[in-house]
Amino acid sequence: MSDKQSIEFLQERIKAARRQIPSDLVLKKGRVVNVFSGEILEMDVAIHQGVIVGVGAGYQGKEEVDVKGCTVAPGLTDGHMHIESTMLIPSRLAASLLVHGTTAIISDPHEIANVMGLEGIRFMLRDSQALPFDIFFMAPSCVPATHLETSGAALDQEDLASLIKEPRILGLAEMMNYPGVLAGDEKVIEKLSLFRGRVIDGHAPSLVGHDLQAYCSAGVRSDHETSDLQEAREKLQAGMRIMIREGTSAKNLEALLPLVNEKNSRRFCFVTDDLHPEDLLERGHMDDVLRKAVRLGLDPLTALQMVTLNPAEFFGLHDRGAVAPGYRADLVVMENLENFSVEMVYKDGRLVVRNGKIVHFSQKKDEYLPSWPIKIPSLTPESFRIRKQGARARVIEVIPGQILTKVRVEEVLSDREWVLSDIQQDVLKLMVVERHKGTGRIGRALVHGFGLKRGALASSVAHDSHNIIAAGVEDIDLFTAVEQIRRMGGGLVAAEGKRILAKVALEIGGLMSKEPLESLSAQPKSLGCILSEPFMTLSFLALPVIPELKLTDRGLVDVRMFAEVPLFVQEDSL
Amino acid sequence: MSDKQSIEFLQERIKAARRQIPSDLVLKKGRVVNVFSGEILEMDVAIHQGVIVGVGAGYQGKEEVDVKGCTVAPGLTDGHMHIESTMLIPSRLAASLLVHGTTAIISDPHEIANVMGLEGIRFMLRDSQALPFDIFFMAPSCVPATHLETSGAALDQEDLASLIKEPRILGLAEMMNYPGVLAGDEKVIEKLSLFRGRVIDGHAPSLVGHDLQAYCSAGVRSDHETSDLQEAREKLQAGMRIMIREGTSAKNLEALLPLVNEKNSRRFCFVTDDLHPEDLLERGHMDDVLRKAVRLGLDPLTALQMVTLNPAEFFGLHDRGAVAPGYRADLVVMENLENFSVEMVYKDGRLVVRNGKIVHFSQKKDEYLPSWPIKIPSLTPESFRIRKQGARARVIEVIPGQILTKVRVEEVLSDREWVLSDIQQDVLKLMVVERHKGTGRIGRALVHGFGLKRGALASSVAHDSHNIIAAGVEDIDLFTAVEQIRRMGGGLVAAEGKRILAKVALEIGGLMSKEPLESLSAQPKSLGCILSEPFMTLSFLALPVIPELKLTDRGLVDVRMFAEVPLFVQEDSL
Repeated sequence: MSDKQSIEFLQERIKAARRQIPSDLVLKKGRVVNVFSGEILEMDVAIHQGVIVGVGAGYQGKEEVDVKGCTVAPGLTDGHMHIESTMLIPSRLAASLLVHGTTAIISDPHEIANVMGLEGIRFMLRDSQALPFDIFFMAPSCVPATHLETSGAALDQEDLASLIKEPRILGLAEMMNYPGVLAGDEKVIEKLSLFRGRVIDGHAPSLVGHDLQAYCSAGVRSDHETSDLQEAREKLQAGMRIMIREGTSAKNLEALLPLVNEKNSRRFCFVTDDLHPEDLLERGHMDDVLRKAVRLGLDPLTALQMVTLNPAEFFGLHDRGAVAPGYRADLVVMENLENFSVEMVYKDGRLVVRNGKIVHFSQKKDEYLPSWPIKIPSLTPESFRIRKQGARARVIEVIPGQILTKVRVEEVLSDREWVLSDIQQDVLKLMVVERHKGTGRIGRALVHGFGLKRGALASSVAHDSHNIIAAGVEDIDLFTAVEQIRRMGGGLVAAEGKRILAKVALEIGGLMSKEPLESLSAQPKSLGCILSEPFMTLSFLALPVIPELKLTDRGLVDVRMFAEVPLFVQEDSL
Repeated sequence: MSDKQSIEFLQERIKAARRQIPSDLVLKKGRVVNVFSGEILEMDVAIHQGVIVGVGAGYQGKEEVDVKGCTVAPGLTDGHMHIESTMLIPSRLAASLLVHGTTAIISDPHEIANVMGLEGIRFMLRDSQALPFDIFFMAPSCVPATHLETSGAALDQEDLASLIKEPRILGLAEMMNYPGVLAGDEKVIEKLSLFRGRVIDGHAPSLVGHDLQAYCSAGVRSDHETSDLQEAREKLQAGMRIMIREGTSAKNLEALLPLVNEKNSRRFCFVTDDLHPEDLLERGHMDDVLRKAVRLGLDPLTALQMVTLNPAEFFGLHDRGAVAPGYRADLVVMENLENFSVEMVYKDGRLVVRNGKIVHFSQKKDEYLPSWPIKIPSLTPESFRIRKQGARARVIEVIPGQILTKVRVEEVLSDREWVLSDIQQDVLKLMVVERHKGTGRIGRALVHGFGLKRGALASSVAHDSHNIIAAGVEDIDLFTAVEQIRRMGGGLVAAEGKRILAKVALEIGGLMSKEPLESLSAQPKSLGCILSEPFMTLSFLALPVIPELKLTDRGLVDVRMFAEVPLFVQEDSL
């Protein structure tokens, strides 16, 4: 906007606020949530040129909408979300979040960055611009996440410096390499130093004590990885914004909510981090988190602050997060503050959701969708064999609803020289197939907790390097599933023998689809799986920054030691 | 700091935080105020390279100071203060505020700017740099304040644009010209537009309703001019940060404190705006405001947030306002949270106050102190005569303890053609002598409320244009006082007949002295004055932006109409 335009706009807004001219739009007599005073007041909300110009009585608009009895709140914000986990490209996701009252997210595009580096981030920026929805980004701090896996790309110092200039990039995304911070690793510290004075998000599960102080003293100012109340209290005291995460795999709301009180609530917000498409479809987004928080006893206004004013303040979004003059007209009209049922959503003063359905939102035509071929050498079912090298092996134990795993040591079932899945003990074969460089590397391990009785699940979504991960009973199951992913250019597959039972193509870097949310279901029915979100769980089993035991294309990693460990236990090493 | 240095510093801080090396300084076992959690916790505070690296147990330092039993709080911040009102140059003021626990102020240099424009602001910036005290500035928005007076300088668009680049200039200072905002005045709106996205402070006494909404919709985000509870509530609801002012002339704490509760306290801070040297000497600064707030029933921790975290957040000072890792080691050690008695102050980890006295603070030698000659043509006692032009005149009525005045209409006492002061009715002659351009213009009026029985008071401090203002009984009193100000190059004077009873030289623009605080007392004893701060009161009588009736060098101004009015009432106009 030119200076002259900006001045004329201001002059017109002032006139509208003073009722010298009618406003573009007035929402009449709603129960307006005031996040500053902590009140609900029956008021008109006058909107002009996409901005709220007045909240009060007696406003007249070119258009007037009666919202009497309804609650008018600021558009909701998710302060930390990986878009890629929804499997939707940004422009598709926007529509799916708007119907839940969300008008802004702050996202970390580190999934696509791990696959295709800067090119992936530029795609996310391009696909998310000029939408009736605000997508902000944090510059990924840890691509690749570790040296223990093979990623498709790396982001160095210079790449990050080039991102700082983007107006929608607000800071440095979750610094997952907290061991690197604590060790004073030069490359890590360089990145922190580069973002000095900006928002630096943290990621520090279980970090407490002097190490937590050290991490914070380096400039990290938030955490969303806390599941323990006492740990959260310590992080709060250390000055971190506590992003209470309530996503698909990790749900910390119930555990952490007892910490929130009126004295400290400004330091909290709600985030989803990773939200699976089915969860988004069935439960919703921040609206669902609000429902749950209020059900658990949180004051509805405090809850609303945690998804409006609080994240806006933290990220320096000074004209968002409140229904007040001078703020953007990003508004959600809800039935009440119990069901948070979204009736209408306005973005920059434009109606985008009515009766809970998207209106006036035409999918943008982005001719350029990036492609990233799946590079794996030819495979056979034998590629998935595990040679027996001992009696007992380390087994990854899945904890339902969490992305943490446990280490178990179990006797292996075997057919002479080859290890077999043990469905009685619920021990399956787990494979990570390198897909970016064509190395042909396959990491092989065992996993407990899926409950599959037959078949295999495979996914090209496997945090953070997104190689292909597959868990299954027989080698032929694994082979069929992985081959189908190669054919689709990425995706999710459930297979049994040579048959494909379910599949979703994720042709954008093997992570996202250009199709709408409703088409993204690949529930592996009939295989006996006991997990509610098996693909989500699967996708975190390759993430070597979350304790305890994970698998990458290079092999098993004991995250507690941040080192590779063999699959088979040396009996004298126990 | 170079990138390399900054990386090395971070690496060392991390080591100190982890106790791998001793910290530079550790305050042991103090009662540490946690502004995030709203708690007080007995902890060590470890400081390295001027930054807090750890708050916890068991820190070792090269230097250790036992503060057991004492309260350790973040250094206090005054979010809105005119340095010039203390009559001290910034480097002198720093020492006088440090002993009261203040480590940072956000100041609006509009007084010196009205006298000498950009040159004055540059002096303030230069004199306040490299001090063990943080002085931030807001760019003055209204110089001159109005067209109704003659100022020494004006700041235009370009001047303001040149100030934006200064790192210690945080935004646009109080937009006093709210009528200009409401009218959409091009020049005014240009300034708001220039500072879009930055902090814009407001100044809007009595502004409510749709006009308040309009003012806020233009981007103004704070107000410190509110003395009425209901007005403050409305401003809070409109998204303004409420700066509760407790200065020398204007005291709003008692009136506004009932509005503050745990739900909304984050939106408040305490400021002094204008603090007279004697007040600073006798009562203190934010420490005194804290004492009073707590005495009035505010929770001490909430009160502390209002002078630490809250202003730091508002002004985007992200490493100040808390005792937490990564924050600057700006700390005040106090006896308790009732008397807020300051024992020690650390600035950037250096001890600057011990036992309530300044240590290690050498006055800087600024060779260049700007001069600004007093330009008035030669005067005689007759210059101060007022020709009688009617039976009844408008009289400015002083309201003790406020900067607002009232309009009264009184019969004038006269000696045929000349008006006389009427000490029975406490009506004195009031003069404003233009001193910047040599125009010889003198504004003449009458004032009620000083109680002087003889003599005159004169001052070169007269908001906002700082012409010479004088109130007195006889013309000779006025003449003597004004002449003495001319001789000193500015200052405060009490005179009777041809005698000078008291004087303070303010040789820096007629506003500030380079001498220390203790030498700046000019109480006009023995003249019968009934005001406790007569010079402060006097200095606001020329400020034509505060209702109702004021006097400039151009004559009487009815601020309610923002227009000049004659001294004498036309009988048919009543």
